Order: sequence, then C-alpha cells, then structure tokens
Amino acid sequence: MYKVEVFVTYKESILDPQGEAIKGAVGRMGYTDIAEIRQGKYFEIVVESDDEAHVAAEIEAISDKLLANVVMESYRYNIQKVEVEA
Amino acid sequence: MYKVEVFVTYKESILDPQGEAIKGAVGRMGYTDIAEIRQGKYFEIVVESDDEAHVAAEIEAISDKLLANVVMESYRYNIQKVEVEA
Repeated sequence: MYKVEVFVTYKESILDPQGEAIKGAVGRMGYTDIAEIRQGKYFEIVVESDDEAHVAAEIEAISDKLLANVVMESYRYNIQKVEVEA
Repeated sequence: MYKVEVFVTYKESILDPQGEAIKGAVGRMGYTDIAEIRQGKYFEIVVESDDEAHVAAEIEAISDKLLANVVMESYRYNIQKVEVEA
C-alpha cells in the first residue's frame, strides 16, 4: 500500500489572486515581513497496490485528468510506502 | 529568508465531502485501487526574516487566524532556510 501526497499550484507565470488576497490580509494584521504567499491544493491519496511504478503512473493520470488544470497549474507528488499491519 | 510550506487538512473526525466526490469520480474513471482521497489547502510562504523561531511563531499565528478553520481543520508546516544571492 502507498500513501501519495500531491501538491497542485499555479504555474509561476499565472497570477495567484487568492495568494495575493491573503498576503494583503496578513499585511493588515501587522505581519509585514511576509514577502510572498501562494495558495494551492493538497491531496493525500491511499493506493492499494504494491507496485510503485503502477502507483506513479496512476497518480499522474488522475492528476492530469482531475486534480490539476494543467493549462494553469502544475503538480508534483511524493510517494511513501505504507506498512500494512498483518 | 525562509520558505514555509503549510498543509491544512480536515481533522480525521470530519467528513471530507470534496475528497469523497473525487474518490467517486476516480472510481468511475476505472481507478479502483484508490482506497482514500483527502483534499486540503497548501500554502507556500516566503518570510523575510533570519530568525527561525520568529518565523515559526508568525506562521502559527497566521495559520490559526487565517489559513485554517481550527474548529474543523488542522495544519502542519515545514520551514526551509533559503540562501539569498548576495
């Protein structure tokens, strides 16, 4: 079994309105040393498979089709093997 | 300067409707070995400070007040020192 974390963020060239709005709010709260805030989506996915290559291919297919808008967003992921109690 | 990643997810006891909806869609796409999907928010924050303890305290204050709804959500973060080119 594998646990996968997927991080989806706007591409560098794309303005992040949510991040800008939060940065404004944070500045008004008095935190003036915040240089940048970018917001994205985070997914924790548990895959019942013992084949890491299969898991990676599946996560990329799901990310391309569903989790990320690949025109505006990019994603990265990390895969951790999870020991299943017998 | 520090770069901080903040991960905000629903507490375990809270139903994650978005995650459930995505899991349903993924199943209909034929990916039947996906056991669980949880969706959360992900933030990349750049802080112009050289004091890690200050950065941690500030991130916790911002997370508590703005980034997470602490009634339903929990958050964790990791801090990386960023070398600034002279």
